[in-house]
Amino acid sequence: MGDHQNDSVRSRAARGLSASRRSDIASFIVMDIMRTAAAREAAGHRIVHMEVGQPGTPAPAGARAALLRALDCDPLGYTQALGMPQLRERISRHYDETYGIKVPSARIVVTSGSSAGFVLAFLALFDAGDRVALPEPGYPCYRNILRALGCEPVMLACGPSTRWMPTPAEIDAVDEPLSGLLVASPANPTGTMLEPERLRGLIEACRRRGMRFISDEIYHGLTYGGLDAVTALALSDDAIVINSFSKYFSMTGWRIGWMVVPDELVRPIEKLAQNLYISAPTPSQVAALGAFDSREELEANRAIYAANRALLLDGLPKVGFRDIVPADGAFYLYCNIAELTGDSGAFARKMLDETGVAATPGIDFDATRGGHFLRFSYAGKHADMAEALDRLSRWESLRG
Amino acid sequence: MGDHQNDSVRSRAARGLSASRRSDIASFIVMDIMRTAAAREAAGHRIVHMEVGQPGTPAPAGARAALLRALDCDPLGYTQALGMPQLRERISRHYDETYGIKVPSARIVVTSGSSAGFVLAFLALFDAGDRVALPEPGYPCYRNILRALGCEPVMLACGPSTRWMPTPAEIDAVDEPLSGLLVASPANPTGTMLEPERLRGLIEACRRRGMRFISDEIYHGLTYGGLDAVTALALSDDAIVINSFSKYFSMTGWRIGWMVVPDELVRPIEKLAQNLYISAPTPSQVAALGAFDSREELEANRAIYAANRALLLDGLPKVGFRDIVPADGAFYLYCNIAELTGDSGAFARKMLDETGVAATPGIDFDATRGGHFLRFSYAGKHADMAEALDRLSRWESLRG
Repeated sequence: MGDHQNDSVRSRAARGLSASRRSDIASFIVMDIMRTAAAREAAGHRIVHMEVGQPGTPAPAGARAALLRALDCDPLGYTQALGMPQLRERISRHYDETYGIKVPSARIVVTSGSSAGFVLAFLALFDAGDRVALPEPGYPCYRNILRALGCEPVMLACGPSTRWMPTPAEIDAVDEPLSGLLVASPANPTGTMLEPERLRGLIEACRRRGMRFISDEIYHGLTYGGLDAVTALALSDDAIVINSFSKYFSMTGWRIGWMVVPDELVRPIEKLAQNLYISAPTPSQVAALGAFDSREELEANRAIYAANRALLLDGLPKVGFRDIVPADGAFYLYCNIAELTGDSGAFARKMLDETGVAATPGIDFDATRGGHFLRFSYAGKHADMAEALDRLSRWESLRG
Repeated sequence: MGDHQNDSVRSRAARGLSASRRSDIASFIVMDIMRTAAAREAAGHRIVHMEVGQPGTPAPAGARAALLRALDCDPLGYTQALGMPQLRERISRHYDETYGIKVPSARIVVTSGSSAGFVLAFLALFDAGDRVALPEPGYPCYRNILRALGCEPVMLACGPSTRWMPTPAEIDAVDEPLSGLLVASPANPTGTMLEPERLRGLIEACRRRGMRFISDEIYHGLTYGGLDAVTALALSDDAIVINSFSKYFSMTGWRIGWMVVPDELVRPIEKLAQNLYISAPTPSQVAALGAFDSREELEANRAIYAANRALLLDGLPKVGFRDIVPADGAFYLYCNIAELTGDSGAFARKMLDETGVAATPGIDFDATRGGHFLRFSYAGKHADMAEALDRLSRWESLRG
């Protein structure tokens, strides 16, 4: 069919067509850094990856074994839009085992990662023009997805005085109408957590204003001795919970997660999921079901994160990162680098260039104050953490 | 944490919160039928699946082998948002091998199935309120996704006189502003195709009106002797092409596909993909790369579809489906059943109940005339097609 090429329609007019206004959102900066780091690796440099929030470990053995078995005998076609019934049942059991609460599988929606959970939740809960409150700093995709879908993120600036979490008083104090609040505990990028009473306070503040409460629980399971993470489902049947197999279950690239939603939202979300996703990837659903059989391996992973965390909490201040947010969970350390730079983006690029250590500038998480912060992910290998500290200890920009 | 359950916040106010207006879209009816069919199967009935547009075959051996190799040695983490470079390169080569045209890998975006391709294209090209023309009958998710994203589908009623495809004159005749046109050839549900000159005519009509042209090429490769499918990329550098590994490559449940976009849209789509998807599922990307090594197996699958098609084109009229749209490709037969019913939904349910043959009512594809149509998918096993004909031949509702 190559003969059609010569006389193609070379339309200047159409070429002048621009992208939509709503596609003019910020990039997910960590992904851009990941690409730069990959390019440096391709050029032969050794990079220590502390930029992306993903385990260096593969999916657990139980997950891989389940998929191996299925590859031989299952065509792995579409599943129902809400997910494989066995997986929804297993997630329901997970709530009983982990939190001691009963969550009917009918309220569980299997999603293509938490990413799909956010898209489905925002579309099902909010209309264009609705305002949704988000803590800042926070996961950048919250605000970027909301904007792409025509909603307006309302940023609640958080800091050390509230352990980087919003408070009911701050919700009460917002003058404009608000349709929802989204909170993650443990949080990204700070790793800080809400105690049960503070979580309850936020849920109640939302109830008073007729707002939806969305709880991003993707870092549940990744806590290190202090607080246990509380699910919003233990406190409210109206909360929307978003979770994923990416972090604790070490399955980032598999794009598999779940939501728990109130009964009345199941059908609207099912219709959206049918049309926008058809179903979550079937091989990943099969693997996720098997992941629950690998508790020991997953706890061993967590022990490594705990060791990494201890190493970095001791070592980062020694190499020059003195002001670290006291993190309870997740696998991040969020460092205030105001004494080193006001431009965390340039700083992260220079650090990557000169030391091969990749980290994420705070501007990804906080448009206002992010220039003064840097996030390290410690989900990688223990030896990599030690190597990063060693490289940073010899980096001129940190001396003095 | 069960002790939190007793005193949960039982918010009546919040329970009264309803779903968003924009989530009030139609269901993807075939998914609802699939669920009903699955329930009947679970109850012990044998169902012949001709409702869902998916092969009964698994991913080809090359795809499964590639994933098997990776499961042992690759953590399968996130890829770059645009996809694995090797897969983008391989898809580029596919255009050279299949159509004899050069498509730079930089313009190729790996997506989580064509579903993600539509979401990304609609968000990147159109703003809320924009009108997008679609042929009717057509794939229902086009209009349902557009509506969920605030756009207005403008349906172009197509019929036998134009082989169920829109014409440039119809585009010219639309009085309201139009921002785009989406066409599939081979089409779903009719299986009809556009000759190269007709495709060029539509692209030129779009250019004249400053409209974007989106070409859904998901059924390319599935043609049976008559026309070859022409890619819009051979005729225009401005077209947006959406494709998938689901159909020809037999990988529906893997949720893996691709788009080809003009240079200036790559970065807007990359930012949207980073935020809304992070990346397409990595195991599926690895498998898709391997799928290109299984050409023989895929051609054998196609030979089965061709045999199924011949069997049904002969057999369906004999059992009472006399008026079938003359299909060139895909794996569907769209039957006019006006002489049997005006309510194709009730008819399909009754047929499923009484014969165990699942098919999709035309109302999924055509809100206006779909009550008179039924779609059979012939992507299943040859023996299943014969069994379906046998069951239908004994069904009372078709006698007389």
